[in-house]
Amino acid sequence: MHDRLWEIVELDFSPDELLHYETLFTIGNGYLGTRGAFEEGYPGDTPVTLVHGVYDHTPGMLVPELVNVPNWLPINIYVDGTPFKLITKTTDFMRPPEGVVLGYRRALNMRRGVLTREVLFRAPSGNIVRLEFERFASLHDIHVLAQRVRITAVDGNAHIRVESAIDADVTNAGVPHYLPEFTLDDRGDTIGVELKTQQSKYIVGVASRLVSPRRIQTGSTEKRPYTVTSFDLAQEDWVVLDKFSSIYTSRDALSPLETAQGKIAEAASVGYEELRARHEAEWAKYWATSDIHIDGDEEAQRALRFTTYHILIPAPRLDERVSIGAKTLSGLGYKGHVFWDTELFCVPPLILTQPKLARNLLMYRYHNLPGARHKAQANGYDGAMYPWESTDTGEETTPQWSDPQPDGTKIRIWTGDSEQHISTDIAYAIEKYWRWTGDDEFLTQYGAEMILDTAVFWGSRVEEKNGRFEISQQIGPDEYHENIDNSVFVNRMVVWHLQTAFAVLDWLKANAPADHQRLVEALKLTPERLALWLDITQRMYLPFDTNEGIHVQFPGFFDMEYIPVPHYTPRIGSVQAMLGHARTIQTQVIKQADVVMLMALLGENIGVPEGFSVREVMLNNWNTYYPRCDHGSSLSPAMHAWTAARLGLIDTAYELFDHAVHIDLHDNKGNVRDGIHAAACGGVWQAIVFGFCGLHIDAAGQPAVDPRLPEHWRSVTFTVYYRGEKQTFTVKNPALVSSS
Amino acid sequence: MHDRLWEIVELDFSPDELLHYETLFTIGNGYLGTRGAFEEGYPGDTPVTLVHGVYDHTPGMLVPELVNVPNWLPINIYVDGTPFKLITKTTDFMRPPEGVVLGYRRALNMRRGVLTREVLFRAPSGNIVRLEFERFASLHDIHVLAQRVRITAVDGNAHIRVESAIDADVTNAGVPHYLPEFTLDDRGDTIGVELKTQQSKYIVGVASRLVSPRRIQTGSTEKRPYTVTSFDLAQEDWVVLDKFSSIYTSRDALSPLETAQGKIAEAASVGYEELRARHEAEWAKYWATSDIHIDGDEEAQRALRFTTYHILIPAPRLDERVSIGAKTLSGLGYKGHVFWDTELFCVPPLILTQPKLARNLLMYRYHNLPGARHKAQANGYDGAMYPWESTDTGEETTPQWSDPQPDGTKIRIWTGDSEQHISTDIAYAIEKYWRWTGDDEFLTQYGAEMILDTAVFWGSRVEEKNGRFEISQQIGPDEYHENIDNSVFVNRMVVWHLQTAFAVLDWLKANAPADHQRLVEALKLTPERLALWLDITQRMYLPFDTNEGIHVQFPGFFDMEYIPVPHYTPRIGSVQAMLGHARTIQTQVIKQADVVMLMALLGENIGVPEGFSVREVMLNNWNTYYPRCDHGSSLSPAMHAWTAARLGLIDTAYELFDHAVHIDLHDNKGNVRDGIHAAACGGVWQAIVFGFCGLHIDAAGQPAVDPRLPEHWRSVTFTVYYRGEKQTFTVKNPALVSSS
Repeated sequence: MHDRLWEIVELDFSPDELLHYETLFTIGNGYLGTRGAFEEGYPGDTPVTLVHGVYDHTPGMLVPELVNVPNWLPINIYVDGTPFKLITKTTDFMRPPEGVVLGYRRALNMRRGVLTREVLFRAPSGNIVRLEFERFASLHDIHVLAQRVRITAVDGNAHIRVESAIDADVTNAGVPHYLPEFTLDDRGDTIGVELKTQQSKYIVGVASRLVSPRRIQTGSTEKRPYTVTSFDLAQEDWVVLDKFSSIYTSRDALSPLETAQGKIAEAASVGYEELRARHEAEWAKYWATSDIHIDGDEEAQRALRFTTYHILIPAPRLDERVSIGAKTLSGLGYKGHVFWDTELFCVPPLILTQPKLARNLLMYRYHNLPGARHKAQANGYDGAMYPWESTDTGEETTPQWSDPQPDGTKIRIWTGDSEQHISTDIAYAIEKYWRWTGDDEFLTQYGAEMILDTAVFWGSRVEEKNGRFEISQQIGPDEYHENIDNSVFVNRMVVWHLQTAFAVLDWLKANAPADHQRLVEALKLTPERLALWLDITQRMYLPFDTNEGIHVQFPGFFDMEYIPVPHYTPRIGSVQAMLGHARTIQTQVIKQADVVMLMALLGENIGVPEGFSVREVMLNNWNTYYPRCDHGSSLSPAMHAWTAARLGLIDTAYELFDHAVHIDLHDNKGNVRDGIHAAACGGVWQAIVFGFCGLHIDAAGQPAVDPRLPEHWRSVTFTVYYRGEKQTFTVKNPALVSSS
Repeated sequence: MHDRLWEIVELDFSPDELLHYETLFTIGNGYLGTRGAFEEGYPGDTPVTLVHGVYDHTPGMLVPELVNVPNWLPINIYVDGTPFKLITKTTDFMRPPEGVVLGYRRALNMRRGVLTREVLFRAPSGNIVRLEFERFASLHDIHVLAQRVRITAVDGNAHIRVESAIDADVTNAGVPHYLPEFTLDDRGDTIGVELKTQQSKYIVGVASRLVSPRRIQTGSTEKRPYTVTSFDLAQEDWVVLDKFSSIYTSRDALSPLETAQGKIAEAASVGYEELRARHEAEWAKYWATSDIHIDGDEEAQRALRFTTYHILIPAPRLDERVSIGAKTLSGLGYKGHVFWDTELFCVPPLILTQPKLARNLLMYRYHNLPGARHKAQANGYDGAMYPWESTDTGEETTPQWSDPQPDGTKIRIWTGDSEQHISTDIAYAIEKYWRWTGDDEFLTQYGAEMILDTAVFWGSRVEEKNGRFEISQQIGPDEYHENIDNSVFVNRMVVWHLQTAFAVLDWLKANAPADHQRLVEALKLTPERLALWLDITQRMYLPFDTNEGIHVQFPGFFDMEYIPVPHYTPRIGSVQAMLGHARTIQTQVIKQADVVMLMALLGENIGVPEGFSVREVMLNNWNTYYPRCDHGSSLSPAMHAWTAARLGLIDTAYELFDHAVHIDLHDNKGNVRDGIHAAACGGVWQAIVFGFCGLHIDAAGQPAVDPRLPEHWRSVTFTVYYRGEKQTFTVKNPALVSSS
């Protein structure tokens, strides 16, 4: 009862929803993520566990990907000789030939970070058993994975056999990532396996132990060490079995399997309940800052906890050389690659609520500066040019071609070439982190170098022509329009970037002169270079239509066919999916917040020509671009919600927020099976805190709110860190407060 | 936004959910109910419209049933020659061979009583149209049925053809109910059809008119008059078409078709929007009293409005010769028959919120006194013995045999013979109505006669033996145990019944002596008969276990096998479904609240032997019977919730309430396709008002509350009539009030 708004519950098992719920019910602890696959397996399931940083580029594949490590979940239960499976239909419910499930309930408790499942199963013998499964990936000790199963003989005296295994015969949807040699241990009471990835040569070790009140026996079939135990269970009796597993890789241990085996011994001696108590205590710490309380909208409350949970579980706790992929660790989509989704969507909530985690994520970019410099150099530019898609190497890993379409053709993917704003997005996150945390040590040692060296890149990237600075061949956030010239988003953000570079230099000069000197020398920040930067900030071309009083997404945008996107409701897919790629890119249909995103990021600092009101231009922009956007990207609705809230368009803001917060829960994009939409999860946090609540740093340098709450919300309570101090804000809806 | 908690929304069309949503999205107005089938049809759909009172007993069938009248919904839309169908999969989304649905949203707005559906459809031509459907069954004029469709050409210039029809080729799931002769009118702008039922000879007339801005044409295929209109729609243009339909039967008009045609002309001249405004105004009146506002539980709030909606739409507004069937007018389940579900579950909420509707329902029983007297006589008893299942005739219509089981055998159904408590249930509702409304005219003219003549029945039914009065061969609420002797529920309620008969007689004598005299004579309430009644109230056998301090459901109950029902969770079906009928009836598994129901109905008046505390016995009863109940009936959880709340077992009460309020929405019983569970809907209202809020009439004769709210509910606000005066109660949760 207490956890009514903390649980996502699946009340019926529907095979059609198998992969959707597998993603939703992912558990994780910042080290790994394990999809909510069943212990006993199911046809077509994808029992994937991804460990941060363990990428592999199998020969023949376009790009590297996060590797599916051995499956630690398998627990197979035989009732009177018949394996328990989720069979829901049968010819005879009293004597089901293959057994049948009579009851089912699965729940993810987000407060506790625990996934439970209860099943009532009748064996062909007619006997009925109740199976209660529980699992968690310890947040207290990231190498501890725990499972418990309680078996109750409900009707009849049942013979039970339980087989617990590690399944190392795993692939990434058919792509093999391990070398043929492997080590297997099935001798003692702990089973284990160790493998090595093909190209990257990471070693992965997994160990596991089943704790049973009865005698156990270990053995193995090919790549599958197992433990079995069996016993009779009299009617109304029950038994509890615990399974402890541990994963280490050569990224974190010299002898992964051996270390995992040691961890298992430790876990088993601590015991399941104490491990769970420690795990829950860590979750309580997370939620103490990360939980946003909405009073007056329970559905939004529950969904918001879900999105927050899915930002927290992939956020690395101890490792600053990994980052959150676009699909977190919850699925194979986008191959575990890291995009701007991290810095502009996932990092800001963490900056304010879990600053240590945010710092880890930003350090990932610092460690990958060599890759960014390499990309700049390879493209003929100076400084650091971050890759659009990033893995463990820091090299550009965006595939250049799509997988073949049904007709065999491939589509050229230009984002790795042209979506260059990623470098500025990273700078934006660093500046935000520094401003909110006051972590000057981070700035001087790491952050400044990234902001400045990416500024160096832009200084070499802009083109002086037509008496101004231009940037050609870009892809802005609206990816329907590729390789366009003078994206207002890109050009304006580059101006912001260079201005920020000056601000950082000024601060360093005044506060950390040695670091200033070091960076000026190392990055060759010559007076000529700085003069060029200043010139760019003053003469950058920012497309603006003075007749309409709007920012122009890019010159030529309004010459294309106008499609009234609102007419395409209700819709299941994007307008692009309806009109086709070829036609869409020649229309004014926008994939996602672009000028609107610029308004979210810069607010009233967006800048307008002399004689124009910023507020009016922002409203004009909204009225122009909102009806043209088909939200073909999951990143879009939350940014729209944020901006609409700031513009006072509350009903529209709520509608967009409501869509954004349910993108995964309702499978609004139809592809949740591939993984959680991390950016949407981070976006809804920002839509609430920056949008509806209007959190900002005021003129006095203090955090302040400026609420524009949905009409039915009574209040929102959230907690943020500002310069090391925790502050809790309760924002009330004046309309409701006065009427109650 | 405003209606966020007033809407049930279906966001994806799933063929598996077709019949479930058809039931949920039933519209109605107390005259008829129409399932939420699609205008264009769908394979396997059940587009059923049921009109109150129109039963027919087709030769060869076991029992009569409510007749499915002609389908007034059909609107078929052809886009560029292709019929719009809900096709969600295709080989080519750009040029779908049979068309394809690109977007879908359906919503039942309960506040407005309006069902809407929006669909985005692509024709094989590639053109995309948006279709917005709306329908309502006017609550203002029960013979007006209105539909609107708005068609927008979203992409491409489309050719549109619309065919509106009445489909009179209907059956009840294959069972024909009409005579072969029928009248069809397809001459003017209004189409119509008239049919006559086979056995009952009811005449049903349906008329319909399509209002189009373009030329229309009428015609017919066999039993299917139609109107067509067609036009070209340029991209971004739209058109609105209205369809008005009307149904009359020989129960309410001399010439049903002609009267319906006249009503159509009137409706068309009033116009769609004005008709809808009048309809919504009537709904506003309903909700002004019937809405219960729960603060602190939005999901319960929405679900509760849904259950209330489904009590309101089948409640007859103008007709006192019909009643609400166990599945309302929303499906063919139980054939439209009326059970105790009406008096003990649906009537009490209406007594307190819509007393006129409650009166109509009680008058149905008055008009059917002849049937009840006939049943008593046929069984060798005096007075009036109401049928377990009732239709338009008042005769017993319970089938004696089930339909054949898979193995060809049939099960004998004993409820029509032995579930005799129905007569007392009706008396209970009448007494409650009288007490709350103060409608003395109803009592003197109608109510007293029913209470007294059913008391006469019981006087002749009880058996004096073993030095006490006993009642053998009964079925109590727990229908798993059939033909048992001395059900404590039955015996105790009979005592209540006879005591109430005395109270009524006393009141009549004092306040309406002429009526007293009339009834004493007519019903032969001789001094001997009254002396017998008094004796029965004093010497009735009420099974009680003095060792355990519990009421005994019936002697011998505890000699049977004990099955710990809680072990059977989570479960999809009942424990009976798991163990089989044959075994279950020999165990202590209880189908539904029985002793618990007695506690709900009588509260602390349940009565205990000298020396026992009522409160303790009630708790003992709860602890005994709750763990034995498998809620095999949808009537059970709400009664348990009510009782648990009164006993202060709030968490358990909430859990049971939560189950009850979602029985239809979550299809907790797996049979919503057959219709709404009316009793569950009425039960949740009582669980809240009588259970959680503790509404009662206090010692001073005034309504008062005694709240035991679920811990997370802030407050509950409800409105009831007491003796003609409307009173609104706001019950606050003290724990939450003090902390906020």
